[in-house]
Amino acid sequence: MSISTYLTAALSGDHRALARVMTMLEMGGEETRDIMRAMYPRAGRAHVIGVTGAPGVGKSTLIDALAAAYRQQEKTVGIVCVDPTSPFTGGALLGDRVRLQGRATESGVFIRSMASRGQTGGVARATRRVVLVLDAAGFDVIFVETLGAGQADGDIRYIAQTVCLVTAPYAGDAVQALKAGILETAHVLVVNKADVPAAEAIVAALRGVLDLDDKKEGAWIVPVLKTSAERNEGIAALRETFMQHGDFLRNSGQWQQWCEQAARHEIITAAQALLWTQFDAKCHDLIAAHVRAVLDGQTDPDTAAERLVHELMRSGV
Amino acid sequence: MSISTYLTAALSGDHRALARVMTMLEMGGEETRDIMRAMYPRAGRAHVIGVTGAPGVGKSTLIDALAAAYRQQEKTVGIVCVDPTSPFTGGALLGDRVRLQGRATESGVFIRSMASRGQTGGVARATRRVVLVLDAAGFDVIFVETLGAGQADGDIRYIAQTVCLVTAPYAGDAVQALKAGILETAHVLVVNKADVPAAEAIVAALRGVLDLDDKKEGAWIVPVLKTSAERNEGIAALRETFMQHGDFLRNSGQWQQWCEQAARHEIITAAQALLWTQFDAKCHDLIAAHVRAVLDGQTDPDTAAERLVHELMRSGV
Repeated sequence: MSISTYLTAALSGDHRALARVMTMLEMGGEETRDIMRAMYPRAGRAHVIGVTGAPGVGKSTLIDALAAAYRQQEKTVGIVCVDPTSPFTGGALLGDRVRLQGRATESGVFIRSMASRGQTGGVARATRRVVLVLDAAGFDVIFVETLGAGQADGDIRYIAQTVCLVTAPYAGDAVQALKAGILETAHVLVVNKADVPAAEAIVAALRGVLDLDDKKEGAWIVPVLKTSAERNEGIAALRETFMQHGDFLRNSGQWQQWCEQAARHEIITAAQALLWTQFDAKCHDLIAAHVRAVLDGQTDPDTAAERLVHELMRSGV
Repeated sequence: MSISTYLTAALSGDHRALARVMTMLEMGGEETRDIMRAMYPRAGRAHVIGVTGAPGVGKSTLIDALAAAYRQQEKTVGIVCVDPTSPFTGGALLGDRVRLQGRATESGVFIRSMASRGQTGGVARATRRVVLVLDAAGFDVIFVETLGAGQADGDIRYIAQTVCLVTAPYAGDAVQALKAGILETAHVLVVNKADVPAAEAIVAALRGVLDLDDKKEGAWIVPVLKTSAERNEGIAALRETFMQHGDFLRNSGQWQQWCEQAARHEIITAAQALLWTQFDAKCHDLIAAHVRAVLDGQTDPDTAAERLVHELMRSGV
């Protein structure tokens, strides 16, 4: 099959073609540019929901239940799992993928795991591209599951319009979420596994933290919801909250602002990678010489960096 | 006082001068380069130990006890606390700093918190610089406390020769540490708060994970230690393990390799920041135009990035 055949099939929602196109993008071969050109004009319609939180809070089960809830309304659902890949072995644990396999056989749901794949340009960029493909292929809702561990997650706020922070009783406290800074990124807070008395205290603590913020006129009020994904409790309410946030963004003009910020971030990230490739190619031997000079006490890293960048710019295109 | 007076005082270990020099570096003013030039030739002797782990495992208390143990051997101790700063407010929680204040009044111990300060070049770079100053000022051992949350921690392996991963019973499981990828960076594993029966199971689980690795001839065998920082149990053994790891690095030639990698990382990070500043200054208006073109479907981010980088290189120095 030619690339354009694959692309046509993928854009019509064919699961095997979708998987093939995503793999091509991950390999970063010469077809990448054609694929991206085909995808971009068709994307921008999907509601992308980041589901983030520590291991063990039940994100996968929650997404599984949410996917079923959206399917009841005839919405198609994409699911992207992001596990931080070890920088040393390329390995990652497979638990989340295994648990979600059940839903994958259902039509109208497509699941992709970013774990343990060789990513050109990093997992952040690969995740954005997989989401782009699902968006272009017409999926209504795309869930992106991340650990909320910052840049390894691909900066979820540039991937998802709605960020949902999940916690659970006994899963570390609200302070941990605060320290990770993700609480300030979140649009919806969920206390999952809420079928125990301790859940109420966590809900109260989270509401207390949120109440410290100044509320601006017309701003989105971050809700705190309780769910029990295993018992399918609170799932429909959570789906409604997501849809309300989507409507809020569209009606307030923030959806369009988000698209601009996401495009800017994507361009800048690509430019940084490109600049870096050129720097590395042209200055490789020079870098080693400067490392030696720093170790010998003849210069400092800032001066070395200045000379290297000067050299690169002098060499031109 | 002039800068050179401050520098002389700081290099002789004067606490107020040290704090002042660190603040100057953080402000990123024109004295930065002079300070760095003065520090680099004098650094490279300190044993830097990264202490990393989730909130609540007792890292601060452990470092406090370790500082006392090193002081018993007449070693001077620097302590640097790194808390991820929220990208939105610049705020961070203060618990760790408050707890460590007791030790700060003792002579021979200097404490610096990286929390909630305006950092030019990011917390990673600021942390490396604070460590550099302490190193140049002659501190024998420098502890860097981080959350183990990846890049927000300033990539601890480029800051510390010895990385110690701390966990505790009930503080999330070994799987969480594995997922974060830090286990493979760690040279010493510690189960703190080990005065409960559950500690033994965690030690066994960690040893089991470590046994999966192939052991290379002459490689460092990662030990798993139990401590109770609050009861001061296991602290002397941990100090001895750190010193053994330091000796191992020096005797195997890996200390020198580490210095090279750290210098390379520092140069490359500085060059990236510099390249980026030039790009941002010269391409600012062009970026806005390309964002518009991407949103209008006239181009894709990769093509836009290529044109922007071409424009920068064409403009020369």
